Amino acid sequence: MIPIQKNCKQLAKFYLGATGAAWELKCVSTVSSLFQPICLPPKDATLKKDEPTSKSQKLFSELGIVRQSSPGLFTLTPLGVRSLEKLVKIVDEELKNVGCQKLQLPILTAGNLWKKTGRWESTGLELLTVKDRHGRDYVLSPTHEEAITDLVAYLPQLTHKQLPLKLYQITSKFRDEIKPRFGLLRSREFTMKDLYTFDKTVETAQQTYELVCKAYDTIFQRLNTPFVKVAGSTGNIGGLSSHEYHFPSSIGEDDLRLCPFCHFGTNAELSPLDACTKCGSANMKATKGIEVAHTFLLGTKYSQVLNAFFSSDDGTRSVCQMGCYGIGISRILAASVEVLATDSEIRWPKLIAPYSVCVVAPKGGSKEESAIALAHFVASQIDQMKPFTQDVILDDRSTTTIGKKLIEAKRMGYPFIVVVGRKSMEQVPLVELYDLTKNTQNLFTVAQLFDYLKMSES
Amino acid sequence: MIPIQKNCKQLAKFYLGATGAAWELKCVSTVSSLFQPICLPPKDATLKKDEPTSKSQKLFSELGIVRQSSPGLFTLTPLGVRSLEKLVKIVDEELKNVGCQKLQLPILTAGNLWKKTGRWESTGLELLTVKDRHGRDYVLSPTHEEAITDLVAYLPQLTHKQLPLKLYQITSKFRDEIKPRFGLLRSREFTMKDLYTFDKTVETAQQTYELVCKAYDTIFQRLNTPFVKVAGSTGNIGGLSSHEYHFPSSIGEDDLRLCPFCHFGTNAELSPLDACTKCGSANMKATKGIEVAHTFLLGTKYSQVLNAFFSSDDGTRSVCQMGCYGIGISRILAASVEVLATDSEIRWPKLIAPYSVCVVAPKGGSKEESAIALAHFVASQIDQMKPFTQDVILDDRSTTTIGKKLIEAKRMGYPFIVVVGRKSMEQVPLVELYDLTKNTQNLFTVAQLFDYLKMSES
Repeated sequence: MIPIQKNCKQLAKFYLGATGAAWELKCVSTVSSLFQPICLPPKDATLKKDEPTSKSQKLFSELGIVRQSSPGLFTLTPLGVRSLEKLVKIVDEELKNVGCQKLQLPILTAGNLWKKTGRWESTGLELLTVKDRHGRDYVLSPTHEEAITDLVAYLPQLTHKQLPLKLYQITSKFRDEIKPRFGLLRSREFTMKDLYTFDKTVETAQQTYELVCKAYDTIFQRLNTPFVKVAGSTGNIGGLSSHEYHFPSSIGEDDLRLCPFCHFGTNAELSPLDACTKCGSANMKATKGIEVAHTFLLGTKYSQVLNAFFSSDDGTRSVCQMGCYGIGISRILAASVEVLATDSEIRWPKLIAPYSVCVVAPKGGSKEESAIALAHFVASQIDQMKPFTQDVILDDRSTTTIGKKLIEAKRMGYPFIVVVGRKSMEQVPLVELYDLTKNTQNLFTVAQLFDYLKMSES
Repeated sequence: MIPIQKNCKQLAKFYLGATGAAWELKCVSTVSSLFQPICLPPKDATLKKDEPTSKSQKLFSELGIVRQSSPGLFTLTPLGVRSLEKLVKIVDEELKNVGCQKLQLPILTAGNLWKKTGRWESTGLELLTVKDRHGRDYVLSPTHEEAITDLVAYLPQLTHKQLPLKLYQITSKFRDEIKPRFGLLRSREFTMKDLYTFDKTVETAQQTYELVCKAYDTIFQRLNTPFVKVAGSTGNIGGLSSHEYHFPSSIGEDDLRLCPFCHFGTNAELSPLDACTKCGSANMKATKGIEVAHTFLLGTKYSQVLNAFFSSDDGTRSVCQMGCYGIGISRILAASVEVLATDSEIRWPKLIAPYSVCVVAPKGGSKEESAIALAHFVASQIDQMKPFTQDVILDDRSTTTIGKKLIEAKRMGYPFIVVVGRKSMEQVPLVELYDLTKNTQNLFTVAQLFDYLKMSES
C-alpha cells in the first residue's frame, strides 16, 4: 500500500510550491463509503413486467439515487438528497430575489378548513386524511391554500402597506394517486415548493404574478433544460387564470399545443383545436410535456371564504387578491433527467448533479497504483476550489478498474470526470478530463486541469 | 425624504475610501417587509386561561416566530425558519464530520412493517395512521427504524466492508400527543433529525455509538447552552442502552438525578433513588430537564425481524448491530430559548438567532432623519461582511421611534443591535452597539463598529 498522506504532501509541494506548506489533505467524499443502493433488477413492487417505466425511474433506481419503499413512495439516497438540496438552494435564491419569504406550515391541515372551501368533498379519493385520537379530521396536505389563507386571516391589522405578501415553503406533499408511476414523476409523496401571494387589487396581483413568473423563468433558465410556458386549466385549485411550465418529453402526461409563429402555447385541455387562439395561425404544433410548475392567479376564492382581509389607507376593509405558485421539486429531478439523459447514461442540469466532479483513481495493485496518491491530492484540491467546494467525489474503490469506474461515472452523469491513470505515470503527469457538459475529452497537466475547472463556472 | 441611494454612495466614499468605488447598496432584509405575525393575545385555541404556558411559547407567539394553526400544530414564520435552517446546518456539519450521510425516507411508512416489529400495536394512540384508497395501512412516522432497516435489508450483497453505515435525515415527524403543550416543546408535528447506524459487531456498534455521542457533544457545545447527558430508559424504541441529552429547566418534563461528585446522571425513571449507581455517593441532585436528544444502542431488535444482514469476509451472513439517534430540531429552538431567555426578552444561542445583527434606523421626520442613509449603509456593509453574510436585518420602519425599535430588537434577542441615532449626527458620527452576547453597550465610530463585529466570530 502507498502511504497516501505522505505522498500527497510531496505532491502538494510539487504542484503548489511554497503555498503548499499550508496545504492539508482534506476529507473528500468517496465512492467506497457512499451509500448508493444500486438496484439490479429494481425492487419495484408495483412494476409489472409489461408496465411502462421511464428513463429517469430506471436510471435512478439502477444507480441508487432513488429507491421505492412502497408503491408511489420513494427514499432519496444521499445522492438524491444532494441533488434536491442544490435545487432547493436555486429556488430559494430566485424567490428571495423577488421578495418572497420562506415559512413552514404544518403538513397536517385542519379538515374543517377544507370543508369550508369545499375541497374536502371536491378533491375526491386523491385526498389522504387522518383522524386524531379525539376524532378530529386532518388533511395530509397536497397543497396549502386553506392553511396559509387562515394564517393571514388572523393577522392583527393587516394593512395595505404590508402588501404584497409573498410566502412560500418547500415541504412534503401528499396525493393518493390511483396509479403512481414513473418514479418521482407521479408519486404519492413528493417535495413541492408552494408560494402564496396576497395583494390589494387585481392589478397589483397581476404585477406580482408577472414578477413571480419572471423568477420562474430564471430558475428554469439556470437549470438550462428546454422548457415551455403554456396557458393552463385552473382545475381544482381554481382562480382566474393559470400557466404551466413544462419540460417537453414524449413521456409527459400533458398534451400541449405550441404555436410556431407567435410562440403562444396552451394545454390541450384548454384549446384542443389546431388554430392558435392568439395569432390565429392554423398550425399549432402538438407535443407532450411533463408539468414541472404551475402558477395561478387565484382572485378571492380562498380569501373570501376564509376572511383574509386588509385595511386600506382610509380604514375600509377589503378582501385580499391571491396568487399561488407551485414547483415540483422532486419531480424536476426526474423530469430534467428524463429530458437530458440517454437510455443508459444520466445527464443532469449541471447545477443539480449530485457531485460536480468525479475523480477516478487507479485500482489497487495495478500498474498505475502509485498514482493513487495523485488522485487523492487532485480530488482534495478541487474540493477546496471555489465553485466546487465540497462538491467532489473520489472513486477510490481498490478492487475496481479505471475502465469500469469511468463507465459508471459517465452513467451517473457527473459533469466533470477526471481520470488519473496511465498517463499520470509519465515524467510530467497528465490526467484526462471528460467534460460531459461540452462532450469533450482532454489530456491536461494538473495545473491545466485546475485552470480549466476554475474557468468553467459551476 | 432623503435620497438614500445617493446619500449612501457619498457615505461609502467617506468610509471606504477608494475601495468604495466598487461598493453597491445591496438588498438587506428589512423589518418593514418582514412577515412577522405578532400575536397579542395569542391565537392559542388550546390554551385555556389557567393552563400553564412556557416562556418560549409565549415569546415565540408574541414576537411572531411561531404561530399555532391547530392544537399542537405550528407554523414557523420566516424568523422561525431562519433559526431552524441555521440549526440544521450545524447538525449537518457535525454529522458529516463523523461520516454520516443524509437521505430522505418517505413520511408514510407501510403499516405492515410496523406490524412485523410489533410497534403497530405497542405504540398505542400516539400513532397516527392513514388508509390509502386501496385500504392499505400507513403510519405517519414518528420515527423510522422500520423504514431504514427495510431499506438496508434489501441491499444486494451488503458486505462488512461497507459497515458501519451511518444514515440520517431531517424531516417532519408525528405523534398524536394526548395533551400537546408548551408550543414546540410538545407538539404533534415536529422536525426531527434521526440517524440510524449499522455495524458488524456489538463492539464496533459501541464505537460508532461513542463517535456519534461525540458529535452530539460538539453540537451542544456549539450551541453554548447548558446541557447534561444522562442514562436513559429505552422505552418503546428498545435496545441495550440509551442516553438522553437534556437542557436543565424547571419546565422540563423529565426528572433527572445528577451526581455532583462523579458527574454521572440518570433519568429518574431508571434510578429513582438518591444514591449514585456509579460512584455510590449518597447525594444525587434532583433537577428537571427538557429532553433534546436521545441515543440508543439498539442491538438487533429491528435488524433481526426485518432481515438486515451483511456478509463477512468468509461469506457467512450475520445480522447487523444497530444504533439510532434523535435530535429534536424544532424542540431545540424552543428549549434553548426556554433556558436562556428572561420572562420578557428572548436570548438565543448566538449561532441560531434568526438574524445575527439588527440595525436600528431613525424614525422618518425625526431630528435624526438624515441618519437614515447611514443606517442603510451600515446594514448593507455588515450584511456583506464574512461572518454576517445575509444575516442582517434593518429596522427601517418610518413611523416607529428608535426607542421602541431598540426595545423590540432586545425582546427578539438579536445578538448584536446597532443603533444609528442622535450621536450619528455629530462631526464624527458615532453609533451604539448593544452586544447581547456579552451584555455590553458601546459607542463606536463606524470603522470601530466594523472592526468589533469582524473580531467577534459569528
